[in-house]
Amino acid sequence: MKKVLVLMGPNLNLTGKRQPQIYGAATADDINAQIVAAAKELGQSAEVFQTNHEGVLVDKLHWAADNCDAVILNAGALTHYSFALRDAVAAVNVPVVEVHMSNIYAREEFRHTSVISAVCAGTICGFGVNSYILALNAVKGLLK
Amino acid sequence: MKKVLVLMGPNLNLTGKRQPQIYGAATADDINAQIVAAAKELGQSAEVFQTNHEGVLVDKLHWAADNCDAVILNAGALTHYSFALRDAVAAVNVPVVEVHMSNIYAREEFRHTSVISAVCAGTICGFGVNSYILALNAVKGLLK
Amino acid sequence: MKKVLVLMGPNLNLTGKRQPQIYGAATADDINAQIVAAAKELGQSAEVFQTNHEGVLVDKLHWAADNCDAVILNAGALTHYSFALRDAVAAVNVPVVEVHMSNIYAREEFRHTSVISAVCAGTICGFGVNSYILALNAVKGLLK
Amino acid sequence: MKKVLVLMGPNLNLTGKRQPQIYGAATADDINAQIVAAAKELGQSAEVFQTNHEGVLVDKLHWAADNCDAVILNAGALTHYSFALRDAVAAVNVPVVEVHMSNIYAREEFRHTSVISAVCAGTICGFGVNSYILALNAVKGLLK
Amino acid sequence: MKKVLVLMGPNLNLTGKRQPQIYGAATADDINAQIVAAAKELGQSAEVFQTNHEGVLVDKLHWAADNCDAVILNAGALTHYSFALRDAVAAVNVPVVEVHMSNIYAREEFRHTSVISAVCAGTICGFGVNSYILALNAVKGLLK
Amino acid sequence: MKKVLVLMGPNLNLTGKRQPQIYGAATADDINAQIVAAAKELGQSAEVFQTNHEGVLVDKLHWAADNCDAVILNAGALTHYSFALRDAVAAVNVPVVEVHMSNIYAREEFRHTSVISAVCAGTICGFGVNSYILALNAVKGLLK
Amino acid sequence: MKKVLVLMGPNLNLTGKRQPQIYGAATADDINAQIVAAAKELGQSAEVFQTNHEGVLVDKLHWAADNCDAVILNAGALTHYSFALRDAVAAVNVPVVEVHMSNIYAREEFRHTSVISAVCAGTICGFGVNSYILALNAVKGLLK
Amino acid sequence: MKKVLVLMGPNLNLTGKRQPQIYGAATADDINAQIVAAAKELGQSAEVFQTNHEGVLVDKLHWAADNCDAVILNAGALTHYSFALRDAVAAVNVPVVEVHMSNIYAREEFRHTSVISAVCAGTICGFGVNSYILALNAVKGLLK
Amino acid sequence: MKKVLVLMGPNLNLTGKRQPQIYGAATADDINAQIVAAAKELGQSAEVFQTNHEGVLVDKLHWAADNCDAVILNAGALTHYSFALRDAVAAVNVPVVEVHMSNIYAREEFRHTSVISAVCAGTICGFGVNSYILALNAVKGLLK
Amino acid sequence: MKKVLVLMGPNLNLTGKRQPQIYGAATADDINAQIVAAAKELGQSAEVFQTNHEGVLVDKLHWAADNCDAVILNAGALTHYSFALRDAVAAVNVPVVEVHMSNIYAREEFRHTSVISAVCAGTICGFGVNSYILALNAVKGLLK
Amino acid sequence: MKKVLVLMGPNLNLTGKRQPQIYGAATADDINAQIVAAAKELGQSAEVFQTNHEGVLVDKLHWAADNCDAVILNAGALTHYSFALRDAVAAVNVPVVEVHMSNIYAREEFRHTSVISAVCAGTICGFGVNSYILALNAVKGLLK
Amino acid sequence: MKKVLVLMGPNLNLTGKRQPQIYGAATADDINAQIVAAAKELGQSAEVFQTNHEGVLVDKLHWAADNCDAVILNAGALTHYSFALRDAVAAVNVPVVEVHMSNIYAREEFRHTSVISAVCAGTICGFGVNSYILALNAVKGLLK
Repeated sequence: MKKVLVLMGPNLNLTGKRQPQIYGAATADDINAQIVAAAKELGQSAEVFQTNHEGVLVDKLHWAADNCDAVILNAGALTHYSFALRDAVAAVNVPVVEVHMSNIYAREEFRHTSVISAVCAGTICGFGVNSYILALNAVKGLLK
Repeated sequence: MKKVLVLMGPNLNLTGKRQPQIYGAATADDINAQIVAAAKELGQSAEVFQTNHEGVLVDKLHWAADNCDAVILNAGALTHYSFALRDAVAAVNVPVVEVHMSNIYAREEFRHTSVISAVCAGTICGFGVNSYILALNAVKGLLK
Repeated sequence: MKKVLVLMGPNLNLTGKRQPQIYGAATADDINAQIVAAAKELGQSAEVFQTNHEGVLVDKLHWAADNCDAVILNAGALTHYSFALRDAVAAVNVPVVEVHMSNIYAREEFRHTSVISAVCAGTICGFGVNSYILALNAVKGLLK
Repeated sequence: MKKVLVLMGPNLNLTGKRQPQIYGAATADDINAQIVAAAKELGQSAEVFQTNHEGVLVDKLHWAADNCDAVILNAGALTHYSFALRDAVAAVNVPVVEVHMSNIYAREEFRHTSVISAVCAGTICGFGVNSYILALNAVKGLLK
Repeated sequence: MKKVLVLMGPNLNLTGKRQPQIYGAATADDINAQIVAAAKELGQSAEVFQTNHEGVLVDKLHWAADNCDAVILNAGALTHYSFALRDAVAAVNVPVVEVHMSNIYAREEFRHTSVISAVCAGTICGFGVNSYILALNAVKGLLK
Repeated sequence: MKKVLVLMGPNLNLTGKRQPQIYGAATADDINAQIVAAAKELGQSAEVFQTNHEGVLVDKLHWAADNCDAVILNAGALTHYSFALRDAVAAVNVPVVEVHMSNIYAREEFRHTSVISAVCAGTICGFGVNSYILALNAVKGLLK
Repeated sequence: MKKVLVLMGPNLNLTGKRQPQIYGAATADDINAQIVAAAKELGQSAEVFQTNHEGVLVDKLHWAADNCDAVILNAGALTHYSFALRDAVAAVNVPVVEVHMSNIYAREEFRHTSVISAVCAGTICGFGVNSYILALNAVKGLLK
Repeated sequence: MKKVLVLMGPNLNLTGKRQPQIYGAATADDINAQIVAAAKELGQSAEVFQTNHEGVLVDKLHWAADNCDAVILNAGALTHYSFALRDAVAAVNVPVVEVHMSNIYAREEFRHTSVISAVCAGTICGFGVNSYILALNAVKGLLK
Repeated sequence: MKKVLVLMGPNLNLTGKRQPQIYGAATADDINAQIVAAAKELGQSAEVFQTNHEGVLVDKLHWAADNCDAVILNAGALTHYSFALRDAVAAVNVPVVEVHMSNIYAREEFRHTSVISAVCAGTICGFGVNSYILALNAVKGLLK
Repeated sequence: MKKVLVLMGPNLNLTGKRQPQIYGAATADDINAQIVAAAKELGQSAEVFQTNHEGVLVDKLHWAADNCDAVILNAGALTHYSFALRDAVAAVNVPVVEVHMSNIYAREEFRHTSVISAVCAGTICGFGVNSYILALNAVKGLLK
Repeated sequence: MKKVLVLMGPNLNLTGKRQPQIYGAATADDINAQIVAAAKELGQSAEVFQTNHEGVLVDKLHWAADNCDAVILNAGALTHYSFALRDAVAAVNVPVVEVHMSNIYAREEFRHTSVISAVCAGTICGFGVNSYILALNAVKGLLK
Repeated sequence: MKKVLVLMGPNLNLTGKRQPQIYGAATADDINAQIVAAAKELGQSAEVFQTNHEGVLVDKLHWAADNCDAVILNAGALTHYSFALRDAVAAVNVPVVEVHMSNIYAREEFRHTSVISAVCAGTICGFGVNSYILALNAVKGLLK
């Protein structure tokens, strides 16, 4: 059974409470449950981890290199400036899939640039909670 | 049964022959067959259409507005400058999912900007042929 | 009787159906009828032609050089990037008036730049269907 | 009878004397007479007012809000940097039509940007004295 | 008793009438009364002066250098381009506090740059009428 | 009694020791005491919290959403690049006032851009310790 | 005998009629005849093909990959924005030589950037009809 | 005897009082006297005129066109943004010499661009009061 | 004996494991041992400290101000955007030497800008592990 | 017999030794011999001159104006910044053909801009040694 | 008697022969004679020196530091990019006056930036040969 | 014994005389002596060579390729624009170490970009004369 780390960055703990017109009404807990269930159906074991700290995200990515088969990463706003996270993604040897719930290209201009896309395997954005489920499917393909 | 138009732009007829290190070895025909089969499994009827003409893509999008439930669009290099295509996507009332086989953010700088992302429902890129299959899954979620 | 070609570019066939809050409720057919009638009142014979194809617009401009006294051009989104169209306007010897129904300067930033304005006789934008009628009046002045 | 203020900014008092290859040979007085006559034909009462002072243009726009049905504004070079004028246009409740005699997009680069277009009803440029007459027609349409 | 000049630039005479969703419903007269009263409480004598003319603002700043202890300046849209005003602020020897009623950083991009901030003592923006009252408090601190 | 969190970012613990020509001679402890005392006078209960960690600032903002009536935020240099902080400010439902002790517009160019201003209620900068006291006054107005 | 496709883009059918001070007085037919004759002298069989349609240029390049030994491409104004054409050039396995009759670097700024140069074998520009003849010579060298 | 208008813009009335490390200790009156005297020696009649109003500068330039042989213009900070002034300079038929007392290229970046240089006969900057005297000499040469 | 803190930022714990073609095969432990040994030879006591957390780097720099004679700082990717780190370097009173193992100017464009160089004593980059040893030598010179 | 100066700039003496994957294996001497021989066949007398000194290139161009019929110029890296060379080309009355052996548009970005193209007759680049031979042919056409 | 070095850069030896519509018909020799004569009248001894070599200009400036009282520098096109020359001007202890015969702000855009102005005493441009004579006058003022 | 060329560019002959607050009081001769002595201690033979001529620097680098084991290069202001020097560094087969005495990142903006860093082995800057000594140490490491 493949181990997949679903890593979430700053403010994603507030999903469901924060700007529901953008992020939907499902809470972080709902979303985590949906992800774990969907992974199981795909024969994967998913661990969801959220933090507001860039450094913890980097630490966790390093840990995943030795303990997981793939990473799904929604870096929140760090997506747009954290070159430290980019270097961490480039340094680990497991595939990393970039995910966004909202369509970042339909929002403020600063969200149109991702500094981590270039070193991820691929990107999925705009499908709400389903973005994570699609990423689990993408991981399945990458690990074949 | 949902009707899905899978629309492909310039040079995508050459997939399999052109730069296989980027686009893989599967030919356009192979890919079309995989898409149609995967759609069927998802309870969808997929029509694949490729053209090198921007105007034909616009015409076809207009047609899809009246004849399809969703569009999956890989606009090829037109992605980066065709505001006509963007306006067509914005004008039609069916959801449009943007797809790229390669990770456009890991390639030349001109490929980092998509002028159509902002008016699509979402974007999937970097997973090769699987990008289309994931998009069919995404469409399924959007049409629920 | 002066012959005027009213040339419309991508997506303008959808006027009336597409984003009526921007383009109004009059359909393409209504608009064409209004243009033809207004031209007649001004002693002009107007032909309205719409296409989604850049190449057809170029072909038609070449044709107009030999067959018309003036051209009224609403190039749609091609306005913002089609240097081929710009060269065609510069190459023909009849006056070309640029027209937009919406106020392009009050919309997305990419619409603020027109690559064809510099080679047109003048520009009229923001008055809905009336933009075309004003352009017919402008043509009348130019042909005196 | 509709009251229309035709407001002209810096250096437009010199029309006819200044760079006739760009602005034509008609003097400011000739132009004013043509505007007033054309307005009368359209059932409008036009007042033409010229000043070289940005502050006076702002004052006059405020005055027009209470005393006129529409404004036709040729702001001269203030078009390109006077955000104070832009705010005045946005603040008044009557429609304002932007006018230029020359084709500003065929001249120096600094003339290609208008900071007031976005808050005007529409723009007419490039038709010499006729630009004003077309604007009177446009106003007629806007006030219907 | 400290003398404070509260200087207001273009269009601020329209406050209360103009875009109340941005500037609130209090009229210019209301605001002036509130400022004068609040100043009195702080042991200051406030004079409020509004003009739509850049040159008058410069003249008034020169006058304040010899006649006031401090200036509170809401330059309106001149904030964004009037280097003449900037030079006047830099030339006078009394502290100048920059004030805006709206949050200029949450509005159009051209409002995000102030050419006078660098030569003012400090900036207060976004608190409506209260911005002026806070500035009077700030002046009190600066003059200690 | 209103609860106000005064949140300070990186390096603000060094105030008084660090570059006194810019930040003044008052130490962080002096400043905290002044803030708490001034808040009391305004009928507010102020808690001052400083950290050098972006993630802790985000955590604390989330906490404040449920436990405070308003936040005063001096994000230090994070002001200029932390979109994670911006998202946290936008996500919480209490008003946030941005504060800077120095006039950031009179210093290095990178300090002229604040990525958080647009989502704060307002900004106060350049008045040294008094910036915080003015912000407490601003909060009082916002909470009325 | 080597087969060379000489491909010409938008508006090049007007050569001789259009702006002769830039493009010379030779008509498209004259030029074609000169090219065919010069090719023959170099032991090549040249086919000249002109179209105003981007999509047709892409189609023809694909065709040339299987049917020609080399392509000489004057893409007209498409040179400056058609990434679809660029991708087509990169996708075909025959050498492509970029040609311009006028010196594009001595004209408008938008003509100074070619989006296809990087994927062509080389570029020849500024020598009028002779640019094509030199390109035939260049092809001869490339095919040795 | 040649008539020369020496026109000075915003804040130049403060010379001698304002930032003497940049502009020197000579007052505006001293400078005017030196200019008039130097002009007399060169067989010229100089009139010095200062105003803080852009509109008055434009009016005065128009007046000079009919009443003077040359203009010496120190536009102060208007140099950097007043396209209205630029148009006035371009519209008048007498030579205009641009003057600055300080070396504008050794100061803040916004002072490095003059929007009026291109339409003046020439520029003299950096020599303090002597800049005006040198300009009188320059005028003498231009009027020969 | 001089005390030198050698501070390393994000991902530098992976040296030796991560992209050895860029960073070499020596592990973090090897490098630390080489640094400590080389310092001893230079009469210095070196402490090596690595963290992936920006906040911890700032904390540690503050600590070093009171406990060390100099700092050698390889901030990893934080080099390119952490103005918080820059402020920390500027705030401490000991010399800080910037170090990079790879030649950052020969890599991706985002690595070409260091936001901390301007406030460091100097920079050494491109010499692999030897960069640290050279920095110890540089520190020796700075502390003379 | 026409006299042609073939002028080569910095580092072109190293051709054959330097980066043969870019410039080929032919040495400078080989290339010179090929140029002289090819010129002879075309009825031209070619002199090849190489220098690493910008000033010598300028001197030589001045000399050529009086002593040659045409110049072929490969300015090496000076192509990208030497406005002195540009002025020299513009100042001489003989046609100058710009040449590059490599395709400068397929290399580093700084090589994509030539400051001399605009004042040359035309440009030939990307054909290795053959670029010079093609330039001799181009010269032949220009001198007809 | 003050010693003044008049230093001229690339292509200025061609004055009179090169583009007389820009630089006038006076030859370099005529100009030198006029300069020497005018200097004598001002009680100065002028030496005119022209070279096309940047290095020689730097050498000569170093020499002037020990042998002259002032330098008048027309650096030709080096004005726009030679930071080496800028450093030389900044390094020498005699005043340097920048001179241009043509109005560089009315020509190509690259001529609008001078990298040496900031370190010169002042600039005189646009007056033809008279620019040099005015500079001699300026030097006289500077050396008082 | 390894042979090291220490190459210095424009104005570095003036060190000690020029701006001692930036470059220190040691003269060029002092520095050369220190370099030669330090090299000897490291078992190297250093030759110091200074010139103000870009072309001579290129010539000397070519010479070094055949006669030295390494080059230490302080290119002075040529660092910021001499692509000819960059090409020379890239063309030679010996390691080149870039050196600056001052911290170029703490000075004017034009000094923040080095066009040669990308092709050097590494860079050392900010340590005064010690920069050269550190570079000799760096060379020792590179030649092991």
